[in-house]
Amino acid sequence: MHPESSTKNGPRSGRSADASEKLVYSFGLHRTEGSGEMRDLLGGKGAGLAEMTRAGIPVPPGFTITTQVCNMFYALGGQLPDAYRDQHREALERLEQDQGRQLGDPVDPLLVSVRSGAKYSMPGMMDTILNLGLNDASVEGLARKTGNPRFAYDSYRRFLQMFGSVVLSIPKRLFEERMDALKSGRGVQLDLELSAEDMHKLAEQFKALIEQRTNEPFPQDPHAQLDRARDAVFRSWFNDRAVFYRRQHGIADDLGTAVNVQAMVFGNLGEDSATGVGFTRNPATGERQLYGEYLRNAQGEDIVAGIRTPRPIREMERDMPQVHAELRDITQRLERHYRDVQDFEFTVQEGRLFMLQTRTGKRTAQAAVKIAVEMVGEKLIAQEEALLRVDPGSLHQLLLPRFDPEAKFDPLTRGLGASPGAAVGRIVFDPDDAVTLVTPTRENPHPDSVILVRGETSPDDIHGMAAASGILTARGGMTSHAAVVARGMGKSCVTGCSEAEVDEEAGILRIGKTVLERGDFISIDGSSGDVIEGEVPTVAPEIADEFRVFMEWADARRQLRVRTNADAPEEATTARRFGAEGIGLCRTEHMFFQKDRLPVVQEMILLAPQVKRIQTQLAQRERELENAAGEARTALEEEIARLREALARPRARYDEVLAQILPFQRDDFYGIFRAMDGLPVTIRTLDPPLHEFLPKKNELEVEVALLRERGSDPDRLAEREALLARVTELSEQNPMLGHRGCRLGVAYPEITALQVRAIMEAAARLIGEGGQVFPEIMIPLVGTPQELAHQRRIAERVAKEVIEETGVDVPHAIGTMIEVPRAALLADRIAEQADFFSFGTNDLTQMTFGYSRDDSGRFLPDYVASGILPQDPFVVLDREGVGQLVRVAVERARAVKPQLKTGICGVHGGNPSSIEFCHQLGLDYVSCVPFEVPIARLAAAQATVQPGDSSAPAGHRGQI
Amino acid sequence: MHPESSTKNGPRSGRSADASEKLVYSFGLHRTEGSGEMRDLLGGKGAGLAEMTRAGIPVPPGFTITTQVCNMFYALGGQLPDAYRDQHREALERLEQDQGRQLGDPVDPLLVSVRSGAKYSMPGMMDTILNLGLNDASVEGLARKTGNPRFAYDSYRRFLQMFGSVVLSIPKRLFEERMDALKSGRGVQLDLELSAEDMHKLAEQFKALIEQRTNEPFPQDPHAQLDRARDAVFRSWFNDRAVFYRRQHGIADDLGTAVNVQAMVFGNLGEDSATGVGFTRNPATGERQLYGEYLRNAQGEDIVAGIRTPRPIREMERDMPQVHAELRDITQRLERHYRDVQDFEFTVQEGRLFMLQTRTGKRTAQAAVKIAVEMVGEKLIAQEEALLRVDPGSLHQLLLPRFDPEAKFDPLTRGLGASPGAAVGRIVFDPDDAVTLVTPTRENPHPDSVILVRGETSPDDIHGMAAASGILTARGGMTSHAAVVARGMGKSCVTGCSEAEVDEEAGILRIGKTVLERGDFISIDGSSGDVIEGEVPTVAPEIADEFRVFMEWADARRQLRVRTNADAPEEATTARRFGAEGIGLCRTEHMFFQKDRLPVVQEMILLAPQVKRIQTQLAQRERELENAAGEARTALEEEIARLREALARPRARYDEVLAQILPFQRDDFYGIFRAMDGLPVTIRTLDPPLHEFLPKKNELEVEVALLRERGSDPDRLAEREALLARVTELSEQNPMLGHRGCRLGVAYPEITALQVRAIMEAAARLIGEGGQVFPEIMIPLVGTPQELAHQRRIAERVAKEVIEETGVDVPHAIGTMIEVPRAALLADRIAEQADFFSFGTNDLTQMTFGYSRDDSGRFLPDYVASGILPQDPFVVLDREGVGQLVRVAVERARAVKPQLKTGICGVHGGNPSSIEFCHQLGLDYVSCVPFEVPIARLAAAQATVQPGDSSAPAGHRGQI
Repeated sequence: MHPESSTKNGPRSGRSADASEKLVYSFGLHRTEGSGEMRDLLGGKGAGLAEMTRAGIPVPPGFTITTQVCNMFYALGGQLPDAYRDQHREALERLEQDQGRQLGDPVDPLLVSVRSGAKYSMPGMMDTILNLGLNDASVEGLARKTGNPRFAYDSYRRFLQMFGSVVLSIPKRLFEERMDALKSGRGVQLDLELSAEDMHKLAEQFKALIEQRTNEPFPQDPHAQLDRARDAVFRSWFNDRAVFYRRQHGIADDLGTAVNVQAMVFGNLGEDSATGVGFTRNPATGERQLYGEYLRNAQGEDIVAGIRTPRPIREMERDMPQVHAELRDITQRLERHYRDVQDFEFTVQEGRLFMLQTRTGKRTAQAAVKIAVEMVGEKLIAQEEALLRVDPGSLHQLLLPRFDPEAKFDPLTRGLGASPGAAVGRIVFDPDDAVTLVTPTRENPHPDSVILVRGETSPDDIHGMAAASGILTARGGMTSHAAVVARGMGKSCVTGCSEAEVDEEAGILRIGKTVLERGDFISIDGSSGDVIEGEVPTVAPEIADEFRVFMEWADARRQLRVRTNADAPEEATTARRFGAEGIGLCRTEHMFFQKDRLPVVQEMILLAPQVKRIQTQLAQRERELENAAGEARTALEEEIARLREALARPRARYDEVLAQILPFQRDDFYGIFRAMDGLPVTIRTLDPPLHEFLPKKNELEVEVALLRERGSDPDRLAEREALLARVTELSEQNPMLGHRGCRLGVAYPEITALQVRAIMEAAARLIGEGGQVFPEIMIPLVGTPQELAHQRRIAERVAKEVIEETGVDVPHAIGTMIEVPRAALLADRIAEQADFFSFGTNDLTQMTFGYSRDDSGRFLPDYVASGILPQDPFVVLDREGVGQLVRVAVERARAVKPQLKTGICGVHGGNPSSIEFCHQLGLDYVSCVPFEVPIARLAAAQATVQPGDSSAPAGHRGQI
Repeated sequence: MHPESSTKNGPRSGRSADASEKLVYSFGLHRTEGSGEMRDLLGGKGAGLAEMTRAGIPVPPGFTITTQVCNMFYALGGQLPDAYRDQHREALERLEQDQGRQLGDPVDPLLVSVRSGAKYSMPGMMDTILNLGLNDASVEGLARKTGNPRFAYDSYRRFLQMFGSVVLSIPKRLFEERMDALKSGRGVQLDLELSAEDMHKLAEQFKALIEQRTNEPFPQDPHAQLDRARDAVFRSWFNDRAVFYRRQHGIADDLGTAVNVQAMVFGNLGEDSATGVGFTRNPATGERQLYGEYLRNAQGEDIVAGIRTPRPIREMERDMPQVHAELRDITQRLERHYRDVQDFEFTVQEGRLFMLQTRTGKRTAQAAVKIAVEMVGEKLIAQEEALLRVDPGSLHQLLLPRFDPEAKFDPLTRGLGASPGAAVGRIVFDPDDAVTLVTPTRENPHPDSVILVRGETSPDDIHGMAAASGILTARGGMTSHAAVVARGMGKSCVTGCSEAEVDEEAGILRIGKTVLERGDFISIDGSSGDVIEGEVPTVAPEIADEFRVFMEWADARRQLRVRTNADAPEEATTARRFGAEGIGLCRTEHMFFQKDRLPVVQEMILLAPQVKRIQTQLAQRERELENAAGEARTALEEEIARLREALARPRARYDEVLAQILPFQRDDFYGIFRAMDGLPVTIRTLDPPLHEFLPKKNELEVEVALLRERGSDPDRLAEREALLARVTELSEQNPMLGHRGCRLGVAYPEITALQVRAIMEAAARLIGEGGQVFPEIMIPLVGTPQELAHQRRIAERVAKEVIEETGVDVPHAIGTMIEVPRAALLADRIAEQADFFSFGTNDLTQMTFGYSRDDSGRFLPDYVASGILPQDPFVVLDREGVGQLVRVAVERARAVKPQLKTGICGVHGGNPSSIEFCHQLGLDYVSCVPFEVPIARLAAAQATVQPGDSSAPAGHRGQI
């Protein structure tokens, strides 16, 4: 997205203008040189003005200085070549002819606006100057010509104010202070109450201010005004706001901005003048009706300023019926011409309508779907184009509860919108407390929802997260534990709320000066990240007919299948409702965290290494005994007896514990299989490091230290010390790179066997009941072909056993996640052992970048903000680096096994740009959390309909 | 190394024998079919026997069954094809003709030995059977023929014992028990004291034992005996010991073993018979003298058994002068023939000498160097071959103190030999204590050395490690903190000593039943891992003349340069003495751990984020103020004032602290530059996560909890709570993937600037004094070209400033470590910003495999032992995976910058196999710890002399 050359000092082109190059494009009565296709050169606004002029729509004439000139400006250090100056002069002369007025004419001056206009709309990001051409002489001419001195001096002081702040960088407030002083001196409230003399006086004050701040008089020469305004627009391309906006939207720095110089028209010449903005359809609902606002006797900025309340555009029908009819006619023509909803600006000068701008109208997801479907009905666009008209990422808005749009509220603070949807409930700080509070009792059969508020969450908190309606954390990013788990659960979640101080022990949430306690109501919006005190009313999602039709079109076109990541039957059911075609990732360990199971799982974890250690020693000693004699033999025999005795109890207990876990897992899998009856389900064997399931080492250390200090409970101390010793033994410096994934299955093959048995028995049961199931057993974190071969042997053996025991022939597959860089590099050899690959792009991104998802919040936001990275690679798949590995793996694996099934199950499986990349690589499916399934369906269709225009930033494709 | 096909069930070939294929090779009087080149097919022993026979050296005749037959044996499930059976019969008949005796002849039986012999020597790993051909009838014939019934029955019972244990898997001790019972029945001590009748009786008992254990009588048919013995040898290829040995030595499973059937000769036919083993030169010192031991009237196994004490071979000159002369003559011929030291076995039967085996003799590093150099002098070999004759890894033996070879000791236990060299000292458990104890005082001007004993070490312990002579840890592997730091310091270190229980608080080290306390003496051997109670005498290394000559030959041939990793002037000096040609990695942070500096560094670490946070807020508010008015403006102004006030003190203190650190760093760099005067020095900017420099979070948590509990010192509590809060803020889940490397330099550019300034000022000073210095500034952990560009800009700016300030034009370069997989993938773009690349293969291995070096000790040893990995990838560079990334990076970088300097500075820089790979990739240099510099020099020369025979296992190359 950001070519290497994009630096502040040298955008795209350092070359000087070649004499024949066209650098200025006129539009107007006599000649229009540009057209709607020339967005690269003229910017969106300039292309639109040219296009409208060509279509005979009334537009004030003018000319566009191309983006190429902007790039020259930067390349030449703020200078411009002669070739440009000539063309500029000619275009200005043409405009003067067209209007019959001269810039700076003291009798009847031409006034112009100077506006930026880049290829992609960056609303409000760059600068605009109106009324340019006024000076001490021409303002008099304007007053005489219009017979309206107040208008003339008002225009002059507005121009001075804009020129002063935009071109000369004088703080706006200095102008406003003078205006305020004058109004209070006059004892009035509104600008409108000031007289022509007041305005004149203000203009004098502004000129004085300018001279005082710049040590130069205000430039009276209109040509100098124009040059300086143009350069200010160029410079605004690199102001902080614009740079930030481009980073946010993935727009390249080297596109540059065009400058539009256009004859002024005035909506403030009296009651037959007006100004307004509008949409050809309702951008909130999609309804087909002219929609907008206007103000009589006003200039455009008055609408935005909010001092006077604009009136709905439909009232224009009564006030200015002819103009209204003309506007309706023109805007309908524009919509037909552009084949999309138009967001337009207009001015009525003394009864005559001028269109100032038209561009594609931004809209809500709901409106986007409705408009796209209706425009197909109106034969304005084809189904394929309709599919491109909706931002897939916006679809979740249609599926989640949200705050009532009518509700008014003032957020306390804003965190990261980590998992969308609105949630309202009582604050709890403790996961157990969350479970208790939401459990119905005889006294309280309908308990309130709760929001779990934590510094950050850990796997221990899962039960509390499941019980809560939403999660709020002070720390952590978009990919923190809280965020990932919440998205998986489809729960609203706000993370990284750095202004929130959470004191879990005291039960206090402090945000700024507000102190909230356990039980207080709070509302969070997991899309915007807003946190609001009290209860904001919410509305449920409604899936409109248009949405169903729209998604059918998408499904008919996409080549990628869409699965879901789901760990529980409820999630699977939700996902299926949203169109999931199977499960791409079911994490067995999430079931382990359930409160009634955790103690059993913990016992297994503590026993497994103990049993293994004794067994290994025993086997070693038995081998030694074989050839030992004499004293050594006696010693060995004694040791063997001791080891056998030491093994007996843990081994027996270990077997019992494994036998207790088997039915848990089998029932879970059965539920998931039933929810996905007829569809494939990929189940990953145990993945996280075992200590994640145990009490935290540091907390135990504190507990032990305190028990020692108190000395009152030696039994408890001994028990906790023993536990601490085991936890310490299992604890790791870098758990993400530690003993986890298939490394566990290799060390403890009995756990892999247990899980495969649970999967196969559950499947056999469902098939026995007439269901259809196709389990795919997925071995995680494989880095060598030997690891997969090892786990595959176990899985095949157990599968065979269960098939023989049950007499049910369960079709099944055994594959692996490709999530370690080495696995991608050795994909050909690993493919020999695999029936399928699923790209675990979370881990692959972690290891390819060397970024811990849990810790990268410390530097990733800075990296993105400063352009070191174009975006968070945990959100958008890094095609340049991680993508190379995915591509290499697919190519190498398919070279040895052309039919190998491939998918992706990282968070990228729900990201449109990443889905497009998966489509390009020819993967078979993507898998994402339930609420992203429609997003993925649409993104997959878009990738098919419009393959690979990855140069356009997300959200701008398909717009004109 | 291990082709996929190497499984227990099917080595190399599943094909059946083709009729013309030669499967059995005779050697002897009439015909010798094999030769010395046929090691693949005949194994080392078979090829040697054929070669000796061809050379006219007296060898008992026989035949070799090829390794191909072994592979058939496995492929056909223990069967053998007819084609083989025919050749076997013919070869046996030829042997019978040759010897004039028949197998099983009751009058004059032919006896044979059956021995394994694989391509690479696996001493003692597989099985041998002697005296085959005896049965109840032929033993009588042998008794009569030799006139020595005791010999005959002794031979018979030996055969029964070997056949019973090796072929029939009857535990050896069952035979030994019967022998012991008989001896005690007879009231004798030695086997020799038993009579012919006793032996006869024993043979009967052994046959009964065999029948009882196998439910079959002992096979009397000598042909059946031979077939079963051969199959047992084949089966022994996959016994546990052999498999383990192959894993250890990187020998492929599918080579198979040959079987040698050879006529028996007897050294136990009387005083004119003898048996012995020897070397053509002294394998310990390299002296050119016949060296070995022999026993009269004995069989080979008697020498090994150690019941009788063998006599030095020189005494043979007196006892059997003619045989001795013949032996000297023959072995000298063998040495000339094979052009290397021979390790031989011989038997004298009734005055007649037979050579049973000859092979390349293993030798110490000292002997290897001396022999190689002398053989060049003797014109036996060329210099190139001499270079290949020494295992580079063994060279460190020549450079480190070691236990006196005369010293006898009994190790308490054995850990991992993590950093070579012997060390002796008093036990200390606390790093501070270590420093105190070794600091000379008036009372104790010559304090004893200390050994630092810890559960494991952490960066906090560095000062104690530096003070100690050696380090012993209970936990951690070859790449643990202790191991890595100790190797860097050239200190002896034993890690992973799992039998050691270290109670640091109580000051007790418990190993088995031995309890050692602070101040007790202990000795450790960092090569073998031995831990010995008390003081073992040590001897200093002496670098012989031969070594100097040898290394000159190596240096003349190698293409890779060899640098060192060194963090301090003393290390640099040591490395230079060993031949280092510069520093490839100087870690600035190691200097931070010095006791007097750590508090200042800690303050910097605590201040840096605080200052940054306030500055960021302030800048944000100041931007907002620009356009604010009214109340909002007042509020902003108040906040800005508050922020400015909040910033003032930490900012001033931060500047002070940075100013305090600058001279530290400058002096360190100056010292290193001076030690490396004239050579390049690569200095890496700050790399580890900052919390590594702070007190440990869990320890602070305990401290705070206890202070709270006691409630007696609120000031201290408040101070510790504040510190804990800061440490918690900086703590990470996975520090290896966290905020470290250049991510720190990007967040805190002032720290990068400080370090670059220190480097440049130090260099300017040395140049000013007439020295020569070429600093290379290395930015760690780069994953995007933008990161490097960012840090490069800072470095260039500061470098320019210092050059201007000092007026000294310091030549310098700015480059990066390639240690993140993504950096390797984007090497072309990163190269545009870099003057050099240094491959940080430690991190690259961590991230490519997803293995934390700190944690992989939990599973890596199992992975290597079970063949999931051929070796520890933190020791030997993984060419298959990590190597792909290194190769890709070199290729892509050179494509855009052909002259880019490239090196490697991970632990692999000192590993011979990895150095060979670096040579193949065309890197410019390797960098390793000082003591590995000679290893690297030799390995680099070997890579040039004999490019890329990577199929031969390490340590076997160059041997015959």
